Amino acid sequence: MSTLREEALQMHKEMQGKLSVHSKVLVRNTKDLSLAYSPGVAEPCIDIQENRNKVYDYTMKGNLVAVISDGSAVLGLGNIGPYAAMPVMEGKALLFKSFANVDAFPLCLDTSSPDKIVEVIKILEPTFGGINLEDISSPQCFEIEEKLRQTCKIPVFHDDQHGTAIVTAAGLINALKLANKQKENIRVVINGAGAAGVAVTKLLLQIGVKEVIVCDTKGIIYKGRPEGMNNMKQQLAAITNKEMKHGTLADALIHADVFIGVSVAGAVNEEMIRSMNPNPIVFAMANPSPEIMPDEAKAAGALVVGTGRSDFPNQINNVLAFPGIFRGALDVRAKEINEEMKFAAVYAIAELILEDDLKPDYVIPDPFDRRVVAHVAVAVANAAMETGVSRKTINTEDIKKELLSAKDMHPLKV
Amino acid sequence: MSTLREEALQMHKEMQGKLSVHSKVLVRNTKDLSLAYSPGVAEPCIDIQENRNKVYDYTMKGNLVAVISDGSAVLGLGNIGPYAAMPVMEGKALLFKSFANVDAFPLCLDTSSPDKIVEVIKILEPTFGGINLEDISSPQCFEIEEKLRQTCKIPVFHDDQHGTAIVTAAGLINALKLANKQKENIRVVINGAGAAGVAVTKLLLQIGVKEVIVCDTKGIIYKGRPEGMNNMKQQLAAITNKEMKHGTLADALIHADVFIGVSVAGAVNEEMIRSMNPNPIVFAMANPSPEIMPDEAKAAGALVVGTGRSDFPNQINNVLAFPGIFRGALDVRAKEINEEMKFAAVYAIAELILEDDLKPDYVIPDPFDRRVVAHVAVAVANAAMETGVSRKTINTEDIKKELLSAKDMHPLKV
Repeated sequence: MSTLREEALQMHKEMQGKLSVHSKVLVRNTKDLSLAYSPGVAEPCIDIQENRNKVYDYTMKGNLVAVISDGSAVLGLGNIGPYAAMPVMEGKALLFKSFANVDAFPLCLDTSSPDKIVEVIKILEPTFGGINLEDISSPQCFEIEEKLRQTCKIPVFHDDQHGTAIVTAAGLINALKLANKQKENIRVVINGAGAAGVAVTKLLLQIGVKEVIVCDTKGIIYKGRPEGMNNMKQQLAAITNKEMKHGTLADALIHADVFIGVSVAGAVNEEMIRSMNPNPIVFAMANPSPEIMPDEAKAAGALVVGTGRSDFPNQINNVLAFPGIFRGALDVRAKEINEEMKFAAVYAIAELILEDDLKPDYVIPDPFDRRVVAHVAVAVANAAMETGVSRKTINTEDIKKELLSAKDMHPLKV
Repeated sequence: MSTLREEALQMHKEMQGKLSVHSKVLVRNTKDLSLAYSPGVAEPCIDIQENRNKVYDYTMKGNLVAVISDGSAVLGLGNIGPYAAMPVMEGKALLFKSFANVDAFPLCLDTSSPDKIVEVIKILEPTFGGINLEDISSPQCFEIEEKLRQTCKIPVFHDDQHGTAIVTAAGLINALKLANKQKENIRVVINGAGAAGVAVTKLLLQIGVKEVIVCDTKGIIYKGRPEGMNNMKQQLAAITNKEMKHGTLADALIHADVFIGVSVAGAVNEEMIRSMNPNPIVFAMANPSPEIMPDEAKAAGALVVGTGRSDFPNQINNVLAFPGIFRGALDVRAKEINEEMKFAAVYAIAELILEDDLKPDYVIPDPFDRRVVAHVAVAVANAAMETGVSRKTINTEDIKKELLSAKDMHPLKV
């Protein structure tokens, strides 16, 4: 651990951050200056004033995503504030660039008021082609995203919700094939009712799962539970746990088929895994330590185990989703990221693993498999065009070729 | 004109804007990912949470300036709004990068409320090392800058005011040497009482000019003028025009030594120049066409003529000031850009022209003279350290060497 700490600090200090702003045009002489700045720059301004959509032609907007946080729920560190959140938001922007050649820029906001966050982002809308909300605490994050989605004419995506949900769903679809179970017939237990837990629940229900039970620190969430409820948990209670179970996480897991942990280390033990239906699927995604270690889960009979960690098989990593989703959305100048685009991302990720290659330790692609971003981008762009939220029609084969061959992108393992 | 228009549009379209976000670190494999993102990225976060100033060590903040506009007074185009303003703000950011290796990022705000602009920028403060306000209409720009200067702990600089004032003052200091006049004894007439006019007035008074008269579209501004006054013009009336002259710009220019135009084409004619004191100095900076053309001003007896244009001698160009000012301020992690730092910039620019080289057609350095940014940065950094607004002590010789030798900076003419 001390070595990682030292290496990470040294790298950040040497580089003074991980991003810089790069000039795409040279300014060497008066002629260059007259094109890039006054008087030539007035020409695109005039055209954009006449037709606002031309801002996509003449500026960086069309390839630009803001990575925005208030620093209220950063990694496992909690509410560390906007200054301390900067390295993470720069890192996220770096991943956008490295994995999808999306220009992403970190903005850390010195307010935690949902209304102010919404207002600031709405005011910043002209500059950006998309907004990625990051590490904003629950339940405020739901209200913020919802209000922005209603008013912004560019995609707004809270990655801690939807990125996690999309990758989890993709992994689950593949794991179910190995378990020879249908998603319509399974019982899923989700531990954690924050941003990720809520989004995973909603997405699984949307793609056809019928029975989900969500637990939080007070145990199973059910309609009318007297304590620890908020608006979002009341919504969850209305759409999950039809049998109105009460009790603990251990109670919930009895005869469950799938456990999805977006909670804390050690929340699950071997006995709880043994109480599940045969061939249980366990996605223990707490970071840095999972709800149960993979070897323990396997020993207790788990068929498939996934975690958030790169040192175990089946890493449920958001980087499989957000780069391709924004790449596809930006390339068609999408007005939003709608449900169909999210479903398309789920199946694009899942389908990359062919039936013959599928095995308990390989239900989800490697984060450095470059096919992922290309397949997700194509699927998302097609879904946007089909559902009428695109401003531009493109040939998605071009995206695919570009992403698979790009030299300036870092992940090269195909 | 049509060729410039086509070339400018083509360049902007081909490049899809003039900036991109660049990764300073590679993400090729799991190890890279663990340093730049989770889990390693938590380490700088923890350190910044303990000591906020470490955000300068571990993130891009220390070299990052926001170029912020509401699009309300863009070039000569007026209130074209935040979308149409984007090409200009990208262009400005490009100049920061090209001339001083400062990472600058354009933000166009979809509001023209001064209170909202102040609030948004204050909320964005954690991310940036400095704020460059740009093309915000007068008189709102004064209130916005003043409120931000009072609350932000990073430099806030409205370039249309102070950049213009600094370069004008530098040119004037050199022109006065040729006219063999002392700044304490001259009479200066300024046409235009917007952002630039106000700032030029204030700066000239601060550096020792005693008599300034400001005119606007209603003529000479004087205490108690019944029409066309606002707060800022009342302030101007209190500090200028001690003789309480009334009348037109033509009246003001009689026996004046210096004309400074930040107004509109054609505001001055030869007769008005002839009414000035011997060896008049004329800075006709209206864009794209000056208040009087240089040949006309010369024919009427002007000793020195400057304009805002690159196709005439003595271009009064803000690019001589803002890149070096921010370079110097960022390098010492300045909390503000105070008056001493501005004065330092004025003299650094003026002093670059040695007495022997000084002539009527060369009172201000060429925008592509790379010595400028280095000299201004050193002078500003020293002034910041001497006046106690720096967070870091540096050896300014290092800046100079770096700026004079940088290979990735574009202006190469020394």
